[in-house]
This record gives sequence, C-alpha cells and structure tokens, in this order.
Amino acid sequence: MRPENIYVLELSKQVDPRNRIYLRSPPALKPSQCTPLFIAAFKKRNAGCCIHTHSQWAVLITLLLERRPANTTLFEINNIEQIKAFGKGFGKQGNLGYHDTLRIPVIENTPHEEDLTDTLEAAMDKYPDTYAVLVRRHGVYVWGETVDRAKAQAERFVAIFNTMHTFLIDVSLDYLFQLAVEMKKLGIPWLSDIA
Amino acid sequence: MRPENIYVLELSKQVDPRNRIYLRSPPALKPSQCTPLFIAAFKKRNAGCCIHTHSQWAVLITLLLERRPANTTLFEINNIEQIKAFGKGFGKQGNLGYHDTLRIPVIENTPHEEDLTDTLEAAMDKYPDTYAVLVRRHGVYVWGETVDRAKAQAERFVAIFNTMHTFLIDVSLDYLFQLAVEMKKLGIPWLSDIA
Amino acid sequence: MRPENIYVLELSKQVDPRNRIYLRSPPALKPSQCTPLFIAAFKKRNAGCCIHTHSQWAVLITLLLERRPANTTLFEINNIEQIKAFGKGFGKQGNLGYHDTLRIPVIENTPHEEDLTDTLEAAMDKYPDTYAVLVRRHGVYVWGETVDRAKAQAERFVAIFNTMHTFLIDVSLDYLFQLAVEMKKLGIPWLSDIA
Amino acid sequence: MRPENIYVLELSKQVDPRNRIYLRSPPALKPSQCTPLFIAAFKKRNAGCCIHTHSQWAVLITLLLERRPANTTLFEINNIEQIKAFGKGFGKQGNLGYHDTLRIPVIENTPHEEDLTDTLEAAMDKYPDTYAVLVRRHGVYVWGETVDRAKAQAERFVAIFNTMHTFLIDVSLDYLFQLAVEMKKLGIPWLSDIA
Repeated sequence: MRPENIYVLELSKQVDPRNRIYLRSPPALKPSQCTPLFIAAFKKRNAGCCIHTHSQWAVLITLLLERRPANTTLFEINNIEQIKAFGKGFGKQGNLGYHDTLRIPVIENTPHEEDLTDTLEAAMDKYPDTYAVLVRRHGVYVWGETVDRAKAQAERFVAIFNTMHTFLIDVSLDYLFQLAVEMKKLGIPWLSDIA
Repeated sequence: MRPENIYVLELSKQVDPRNRIYLRSPPALKPSQCTPLFIAAFKKRNAGCCIHTHSQWAVLITLLLERRPANTTLFEINNIEQIKAFGKGFGKQGNLGYHDTLRIPVIENTPHEEDLTDTLEAAMDKYPDTYAVLVRRHGVYVWGETVDRAKAQAERFVAIFNTMHTFLIDVSLDYLFQLAVEMKKLGIPWLSDIA
Repeated sequence: MRPENIYVLELSKQVDPRNRIYLRSPPALKPSQCTPLFIAAFKKRNAGCCIHTHSQWAVLITLLLERRPANTTLFEINNIEQIKAFGKGFGKQGNLGYHDTLRIPVIENTPHEEDLTDTLEAAMDKYPDTYAVLVRRHGVYVWGETVDRAKAQAERFVAIFNTMHTFLIDVSLDYLFQLAVEMKKLGIPWLSDIA
Repeated sequence: MRPENIYVLELSKQVDPRNRIYLRSPPALKPSQCTPLFIAAFKKRNAGCCIHTHSQWAVLITLLLERRPANTTLFEINNIEQIKAFGKGFGKQGNLGYHDTLRIPVIENTPHEEDLTDTLEAAMDKYPDTYAVLVRRHGVYVWGETVDRAKAQAERFVAIFNTMHTFLIDVSLDYLFQLAVEMKKLGIPWLSDIA
C-alpha cells in the first residue's frame, strides 16, 4: 500500500455521505463500501479513527445473541477488569468502572455494506455512549474520539503499542469478545450480580 | 528454497498430466504428488494460482460432514459477510452476495494423492462455480482464475497483503472453516433462513 | 516507550506505598495503579521482577473457580510436569516436584486496582510459598525473587529466551492456566491421586 | 544461547548414559535431565536428532487416554492424510500410508526425568517402529533417524522450512495431537474403518 492508493477527503466538505467529494481518488481502485459508515463515526461521534474488522469472535458473539429468546440486539458484559479500558461515552469524562456494564448494540447485516449506514446511525442514537457497533454475522465497527482519547481508553497497552493507537481499541474489544465466547463454552454467564 | 529447487513446466505442452514434460526438473528432488491436481485447476478453470493446505479447520469440516446422516460431500454456509469475498464462479462476473450459499464439494481421500485427480475433476464438473475442493480427512485445494481475479475475491484484505494475493483466498476460506467449526461447538447451524 | 517515560523509584525509600517518592516521574503520564502491588511483591517477597497480565486463561480460571460450590479462592493443580518449573517458595531451595500441588490464591477484584493491595498482601501471608496471585475476573500477578531465581524457575526455556527471564515465569503459568481450561472443556479434573 | 553454553559429547564413548563423558561441559550450567533419554534415541534408533516438548496438545492426549477404561498407554490414529508424513519405522523404507494406523506409546511420568529412561527404552522395544514416545502429563519425545530421513518424513513442508528439519517432525506430530483433541471436543473418534 502506497500513499497514492489512499483515498483522501475533507470531512467538513461532505454533505451527502453517499455522494462524496474526494481530494484524492485513485482511478484504478474503488472506494470501500465502509466509507459512509466511517463518516458516520467521524461526524456523529467526532471520532479521530474508526476501525472495521471481521473478527471471528465478534461474528460468534452476534450468532450467540441471535439464538437467544430475547434481547438479541445487545451485547452486555460486566464485572470484567478489561471493561475499564473503555470510555464512559461520547463527551463524557473518564472510563467505565469494573462493575459497569459495557453495552454494544448489534445491527442486522445487509447485502450491501453501505446500506448499514442508517441502522448504524440509529444504533449510535439509541446507545449514545457506545464506542462500537456489532454487525450480525459480519463483524464490528469501533471508533475513538481522538488519538489521545483512544490512547486513554487503551492505557494499559499504550506503552507497548505506542504508535498503533487506532488498532488498540479493537484489540481490547476483541479480547472481550473472545473471552465471552470461551465463557459461553464453559457455561459462564456474561452478566453477574457482583456488587 | 532457491529458484533451482522449483519445478517449471509449460502448461500448453502438457498432454497427459501424469506424464509431464518439464522445463526444469531438479534432479535431487521428486515432484509433488499434487502436480496433476494443480494442472487440473490450471487447465479446467484457467487458474492463475492453486494452493493446497492441510488446514486443521478444513480437515475438521470434512470430519463433521462425514458424520452427518445425509449430504456428507458438500460444505454449505450462508449469511456470513465473508462469503462476499468469493467470486460467483468460473467465467462469471462479480462476487457472491451475503445471502448466497457458498458451496464447496468434498471428495474422498485416496492413499496416493495423484489418484485424487479424477474425483477432483468430477467435483469441478459437478460444481462448476466452486473455487475450492475439500478432500476428506486431508485438506483443501483452492484456486483463483487470474491474479487480478484473486485480488478481487480478496478485496477486503488486499490493501494489507498486497503482494500475497495467492495466499489470500485460502486465508479467507480458512476463516470460514474455522468459524464453522466454532459454530458447531456452540450449536449454531451453518445454514439459516435469513431473507 | 522511551527511558524518560519510565517511572523510577528507590525501594528502600518507600514508607507508604500509596504515598510514593519517585526518582523520576514523567509529568505527562500518571503512574500505574499497579505500583503498590508491585511494591508489595518487591518488599514482602524480595522480588526482582513482578509481572501483571490480563491473560484470558487466568481470567477464565478465576471464573471457573467462582462457580464451584466450595474452595473458590484457590487454584490447585498437580501431577503435571510443568509444575516443576516453579520454586518451592520464598527463601526455600529447589523447585516443586511432579507430584506436588501448585497452589495459587485468588483474591476478589476491586473497582480501583490499588485497593487490591491489602488482600494481595493477605494472600501472600496466607500462602507464603506462592509466586503468583490470581485476581478474580481480572488477571494475575506473578513475581520472581531474583533474576537468577527467575531463570532457575524457568530452566527449560532459558536457553531459548535467554534475555527475557522476567516474561518466562508468566509464560509458564499461562501454559498451566490454558491447559487447565482445556482440561475443563474435556472433563478432566485438575487434581488427581497419582502416587 | 552461545556455542560455549552447549554440552558436547561423543556418542560412541558413552557406556553408561547416567555417567556421561563430555567433550564440553559448561561449568556454570547443569546438563538437562533429558540427556539419557536423548542418548537412548541416538543409540537404539540411530537418531540424528531428538526433540522434547511439553506441548499442551501432547499432554491433553495423554490425559484423554488416561481416562479411558482400557488401552490407556497407546495413542492410535488412522485415515488422516498427515499420517503419511511419518516413516514406517526404524530401518524400514518408505512412509506410513493414509490407511495405516500411527501408534505412539505412552509411558507414565516420574518425578525425575532421567528415571524415564528405562520405560522409554522399553516402549521403544515394544513399539520398534515408533518415532515418538508420549510421556503422561508431561509431553513427548520425537526423533528422526537421520537428517535426510527427517526431511523425507516431513516432505510436504520441507520446501518452506528447509533449514529447520529437526523441528518439522514435531510440528507434524503436534498437528495430529491438536487435531485429535479438537476431534474429541466434536465427538469424532480417532480410529475409523475406512477401507
């Protein structure tokens, strides 16, 4: 990947995320279908970075939720130390506490990725504090408000992965997703009543 | 591995895949038993690359299928985003959609790998759109029509692994195989009725 | 991570672990909440190094123990060769034997990591020979008395990872935690009556 | 690890494996307890290399066997392609076939590793064709007759890992051990009646 292969656009110039004005648009490539989704995170949450992965653990979480009799569109986990790596929410000071419940909404997948934009934005509206949205049978979108904020969210690892802050949030979430899948295999519930 | 250790043959000159004419044939080595199988992919599917692995996930998929009461020779999965990384089939435009079912035939293993050639070719004939054939208790053969086509099939990863396109298709398939094994452990079916 | 980002303090000068005197305290950072816990290992056990991880296997062990009807605060495993990698205890000569039981206490997690100090010290007092303390739903603290001692505990790997002795003890423990989780999945008990 | 840290002894000069004559014996170290076991492989099987690991998969295999009502000291697997990577046995031409059963004896662990020597030699005598011996709750010993033989056993990978032949045999076996553990989790038997 070379600089000339990277799409460049100015956020403030975008009126319709589906009709984008590019500063650089490599002629031999086509822009990612994720672009309007990234723009949603940048605009609605003032995100400094947004990451999309097809993590198998994320996909498995959405599949496990799908089979539940109720509440199939919300991943919730509490009383796990790693939850403290996530901020309280957009515009809020500080991070979640150990006893707080981390909630990540799940939206249904669509044949065309750009069609996820409306439900992703609706999930952002319904869960204004979330830093991530799971997409059923697909993966996860994760963002951080600013570079410094992203660093703060990932405080524990930042010394090691100093230059990789955009990747860190996702690593942390993927840790929780993998842990949650293993908990399921061992019959341990994701939510508990510990004070 | 050095250049002089690589077998070289001209595809158009091969009449009998078992009686091959080599441009270079390292005297101290013996050619892989996979060669006629690779030639089948090159000739019947105009493949630009063909990969064979003994992926444990691929082997486990064939073992899980073997124990089913019916339909033991076809791996099918649908409604998983990653399916969109695979082309619709040989000579067809575009990729599979999210709701499409990815089908990969399974052939029975034989004591000598070259004896797989006939059943591999038969599986290619029966499933003309497949880009892969699983071999029971053995592994998987995966191919791509051309380098560009292989890139298109792996669109999502191509920015990261730009120079490794031949490996990418297999990585994508292995992702699905591993996911399918984990789904089985968690009691989640591979096929679903989502619109 | 650069030298000027590392906190430096003189152990002998510390009276109150919560009110620490630093030789270097990077102004742009805040010290880890783990610091009083590391100091406890350094002071009470004369540790030359102390490591803290959020290993998923460690967390899963504490979750599995939590669900037991009794004895939920002690991980015990015996009759596994790798146990021989651990010393008999603080100030004792030699390592555990194959038939010995490795015991690692579990303390309950708290919202603020520094509040673990008292229970960690109490666990050290109750299990004076342990080289590690698990923290429920959180991770593990592991220490080694001296560099040489840490090396001796990890004798088997030291030829390979010669310069990484501080990491080794944890690797060894994580090996046991992962093995124990897999044993649980396969219905194999952690304790047995062999000889 | 530097050359002067490696023990050197001449095989033909060794009369009593427990009372060894060294060409070089690093004064600051103590020789591995595995030494008499390696010598057994070198002398009884003319091995050119011998490897010992604590692979978790190997340990889990011995634990699964231990819980069987009968035949707890023999790991058997057949009808898996990867079996073809192993030679027919000491002094025999060619490799195992796909339908052949790979058999690896299990010996009971002892508190002191050197005390395994007699039972390891007895297992070698009882299973003269094996290239490996599992040690219950401990790990595995694997050897290859000569470098060329080891290469031939690992034919499939040798192009990739050309200079690492000693490691290859173990990788192959570990592949089978891991596969067998996953088969157990999914309820698939290790032995089958295929042709």
